[in-house]
Amino acid sequence: MGSLNSDNVTSHTSSSNISPLDPEEFRRQGHMIIDFLADYYRDVEKYPVLSQVEPGYLQKRLPKSTPHNPEPIETILQDVQEHIVPGLTHWQSPNFFAYFQCTSSIAGFLGEMLSTGFNVVGFSWIASPAATELETIVVDWLGEMLELPKSFLFSGNGGGVLQGTTCEAVLCTIVAARDQMLSQIGRENLIKFVVYASDQTHSAIQKAAQIAGIHPMNFRAIKTSKSTSYALSPDSLRSQVCKDVEAGLVPLFLCATVGTTSTAAIDPLESLCAVAKDYGMWVHVDAAYAGSACICPEFRHFIDGVEGANSFSLNAHKWFLTSLDCCCLWVKDPSALIKSLSTNPEYLRNKASDSKQVVDYKDWQITLSRRFRSLKLWILPSALSETVYKNGKLDMVSEELANEANRKLLESINMSGCVFMTHAVVEGVYVIRFAVGATLVEERHVITAWKVVQEHANVILST
Amino acid sequence: MGSLNSDNVTSHTSSSNISPLDPEEFRRQGHMIIDFLADYYRDVEKYPVLSQVEPGYLQKRLPKSTPHNPEPIETILQDVQEHIVPGLTHWQSPNFFAYFQCTSSIAGFLGEMLSTGFNVVGFSWIASPAATELETIVVDWLGEMLELPKSFLFSGNGGGVLQGTTCEAVLCTIVAARDQMLSQIGRENLIKFVVYASDQTHSAIQKAAQIAGIHPMNFRAIKTSKSTSYALSPDSLRSQVCKDVEAGLVPLFLCATVGTTSTAAIDPLESLCAVAKDYGMWVHVDAAYAGSACICPEFRHFIDGVEGANSFSLNAHKWFLTSLDCCCLWVKDPSALIKSLSTNPEYLRNKASDSKQVVDYKDWQITLSRRFRSLKLWILPSALSETVYKNGKLDMVSEELANEANRKLLESINMSGCVFMTHAVVEGVYVIRFAVGATLVEERHVITAWKVVQEHANVILST
Ligand SMILES: Cc1ncc(COP(=O)(O)O)c(C=O)c1O
Ligand SMILES: Cc1ncc(COP(=O)(O)O)c(C=O)c1O
Repeated sequence: MGSLNSDNVTSHTSSSNISPLDPEEFRRQGHMIIDFLADYYRDVEKYPVLSQVEPGYLQKRLPKSTPHNPEPIETILQDVQEHIVPGLTHWQSPNFFAYFQCTSSIAGFLGEMLSTGFNVVGFSWIASPAATELETIVVDWLGEMLELPKSFLFSGNGGGVLQGTTCEAVLCTIVAARDQMLSQIGRENLIKFVVYASDQTHSAIQKAAQIAGIHPMNFRAIKTSKSTSYALSPDSLRSQVCKDVEAGLVPLFLCATVGTTSTAAIDPLESLCAVAKDYGMWVHVDAAYAGSACICPEFRHFIDGVEGANSFSLNAHKWFLTSLDCCCLWVKDPSALIKSLSTNPEYLRNKASDSKQVVDYKDWQITLSRRFRSLKLWILPSALSETVYKNGKLDMVSEELANEANRKLLESINMSGCVFMTHAVVEGVYVIRFAVGATLVEERHVITAWKVVQEHANVILST
Repeated sequence: MGSLNSDNVTSHTSSSNISPLDPEEFRRQGHMIIDFLADYYRDVEKYPVLSQVEPGYLQKRLPKSTPHNPEPIETILQDVQEHIVPGLTHWQSPNFFAYFQCTSSIAGFLGEMLSTGFNVVGFSWIASPAATELETIVVDWLGEMLELPKSFLFSGNGGGVLQGTTCEAVLCTIVAARDQMLSQIGRENLIKFVVYASDQTHSAIQKAAQIAGIHPMNFRAIKTSKSTSYALSPDSLRSQVCKDVEAGLVPLFLCATVGTTSTAAIDPLESLCAVAKDYGMWVHVDAAYAGSACICPEFRHFIDGVEGANSFSLNAHKWFLTSLDCCCLWVKDPSALIKSLSTNPEYLRNKASDSKQVVDYKDWQITLSRRFRSLKLWILPSALSETVYKNGKLDMVSEELANEANRKLLESINMSGCVFMTHAVVEGVYVIRFAVGATLVEERHVITAWKVVQEHANVILST
C-alpha cells in the first residue's frame, strides 16, 4: 500500500490528471469493483468467518501516513484483498450465525449504489423531491404489508421515516415523549422522568434514554423469567410504575420489544399498552430484529395490540435483505417528533416548506444530511417480491452444558474460523445463540455448523 | 412501475428463483448499474438542476401498494430514469451552487461500494477488526494532514471516529460535556447548563443541545456583526458568560465555527478557547464546511488555536470528495465520550473488548450498528493524492440589490432550471449564496452561472 512500494509507483499514469468524477473512468473502475465483489460473494465461504487477526495487525501493514503518490485501482483492490479481507469478520458468509443477520441482496446493493451515485441530500423536499416522496410512499407500502393500523401511515395522518439505526429511532421517540411531557408539567421535572423496559431489552434503549438526559437511576429494566418466556409481564410493569409514582416520579416511556436480542422473546403489546395508557406513557415498539417477519401472515399476531402504541420500528437491514443501514420508524403523531426535532434556519427556507404541503424529513430525525435510503427499500420489493419472505428464524438455545463449558465451547468453535456464533446470558445461564438467516445460507451450512458444534463439544466434554 | 403495466410482467423470467445474492447475477446487474450511473454523470448537466416537479408528483406515478410481480432490472432502471431522475435536484451537477457542495468522486464511490458489498457491522473490534483498525489509522492520517495537535490523535492518546453527520458528532460531544459536568456538580443542575455559539452557527448545534436536554432558553446565539466579518467576538462571549454566571447559570459548552454556513466566517479559536477555559467549558470546533480546506498550508492558519479545544469535526462529505455521509470527529479525551456513550450488554461481550486493548467504536457514537466508512476515506487519498485539494471556494455575496429584489432574482434564477443557488440573511440583508466546488464544475459553469444571474437581474430591474 502506498509507501510499501513507493519507488515503483511513479511509473503509473497519474490518475490525478483525470477529473475525480470522469464518467468513462467511473465506468471502467466501477466494473472492476463489481467483479471484485462478485468474486468475493463466490468465495466468501472459503474465508475464516471470524477474522483471525490480532489487535494492531493493520497498523503494521499500512504506511505511517497518507500515501503521497496516487495508486491505480488495480493496486488498491490488491491491497483490499491482501490487507482488508483478512481483517473482516464475514457477515455475509453463510457460516455467520452470530449477533444478528445483517442480510443483503442484489436489489438492496443496487439501490445503495444508485443512492451513492446520485449523492443527493434530501433533508427537505426541495433538496430532492424524489427522495422525500419515494420515502413517504415506501414506508406506507411497508406499513401496509405489516398491516400496521392506518393511524401509523401517511394515508391515515401518521407517517414513517427511514433512519439509520434503531438507536437513532428510539432516541427520537424518547425526546419527543420527553418534550411533550415537559411542556405539560414543566422542565424542572425532567429529573423525575422514568423509562421502562424489560431486562431483555436491547441496550440501545437505555443508551437513548441516557443521551436524552433521563436520570440513569430512572431507567427500569424490569425482571423477566422463564415463566413468561422472558416476555415483560404487564403485572410486573404495573407494580413498578405504581412504586415509582408513589415515590413522586413521572412515568414517561415504555419500550416493548418484539423479538428480543437474546431469546427472541415477544412482549405482549396489548396488555402492556393498557398499563401505559393508565399512566399517560409513550409506548414504543422495538421490532428491530423480528419485525420484518411479521409481514408473513403466520407471524403477524406477534404485533397484535400495536394499535395502542405511539411508535413502531424495525431494522430493514436485519432480515429484510437491505444493506446497512436502514431503520423504519412509524409514528402516530408526527407533530410530536417535529416539535422536538425541527429547525428552521433562514438558509434552508423555501417556498415548498413554507407552504406546509410537503414533508421535510430533517424534522423527523437527529441529522440534517441524510442518504436516499428509500431507493434500496423500493427496489427490493420491486425486484424480489415473494422471495423476500422466505427466510425464517431459528435460535437454538442450548442450556444443556454448564456455563463454563458453554463458554469454552463457543470460544473453541469460533476460533476454528468455520462458523461464528455469539452468546447471551439469560437468568444466569450462558447460552449459545445460533442466528440463522444470512442471505447466502443453505441447509448444508446449518447442518455443517451443527456438526462443528458437536465435534467441539465432544472434545471439550472428553477433556 | 409494477402495476402500471402489470399485465405484461408475468412473461419475464421470475428473478425470485435465483438466490437474492447470487454472485453471477450480482455481476450482471452490477455492471448495468455502473453503466447507468456513468451515463448519468455524462448527462447530468442536461437536466434541470433544481427539480421541476410539483409536490405529490410521485404518488401519481407509482402503484398504490407494493408490486406483486418481480420486475427485471431493466424495467427498474427504466423506472428510475423516468420517474425518479425528474424528481432529483442534481447535487452532482456542475450547475449546483446551492446549500453546500456534497462532492463525490470515483474513489469515494468505490469505497462506498466495497463497504456496502462487504456489509459488515463493525460496532466492536471483533465484529470486523479491519473496519475498526482502518478507521483509527485513517483518522490519524487525516488529523496529521490537518496538523491537528497530537493530543487529538490516537498516537497522542486522543482519537478520532467517523460518524454520519455533524449533527451526530456535536450531539455526542455535548452529551459528554454534560455528563462530565453533571458528575461534578450534581444532576439537579442540568436545568442551569448553557450552550454558547454565534448567531451564524449552524442550526445543528442548537438542535443537538435541545436533544441532550439543555433548556431551550439556555442556548445563546451571540450576535455577530460586519465589524468582525460575522465571527464570534471573544468579548461578546465573555460578557454573555459573565451575565449568565451572575444569574446562577452554568456555562457548559462553546461551539466555535470555522466556515459558517451563510458567509464562511471564521471564529477566532485561540481567544475564544481562552474565555472558555476561564469558565471550564468544553469547546467544540465545527469545521463541517471549511475544515478540509485547512489541509492546504495557505488555509491552515484558520484553525490556529485548535489546541485549546476539546473536540474538532469536519464533514468529509462536503469538500473532501467523499460521498454522503462521513463526518470526522476528533477528541482529546476519548474517555469522556466513552463514559457517556458506552454500553456493555452480555451479548456483545468478547475477549478482545474485555482486554481493553482495542477500540470499540460503538462507545464513541450514538448508534450501535455502523457502516464501514473508513474504506471510502482511505481509498480517496490512496487514489487521488494531490487532486483532492485543488477545489477552492468562492462565496459571492451580493448586497447590491434590495432584499425583495434579491429574493425575486433568486426565485427567477432557480426556476429556470439552469443553475441552483440558495440564500442567507445576514444582519437583515438577504444575500444570494453562490457555493462553488461541485466535483464536475469547470470555469465555464461559473461563467455561465454569472451570465444567468445578470440576465435575470436585468429582467427584474427593468420591470
Ligand atoms: C431488538 C433490537 N433492538 C435494537 C437493536 C439495535 O439496532 P441498531 O443497531 O440498528 O441501533 C437490535 C440489534 O442490533 C435489536 O436486535
Ligand atoms: C458549518 C456547518 N455545521 C454543520 C452542518 C451540518 O452538517 P450535517 O448535515 O453533517 O449534520 C453544516 C452543513 O450542513 C455546516 O455547514
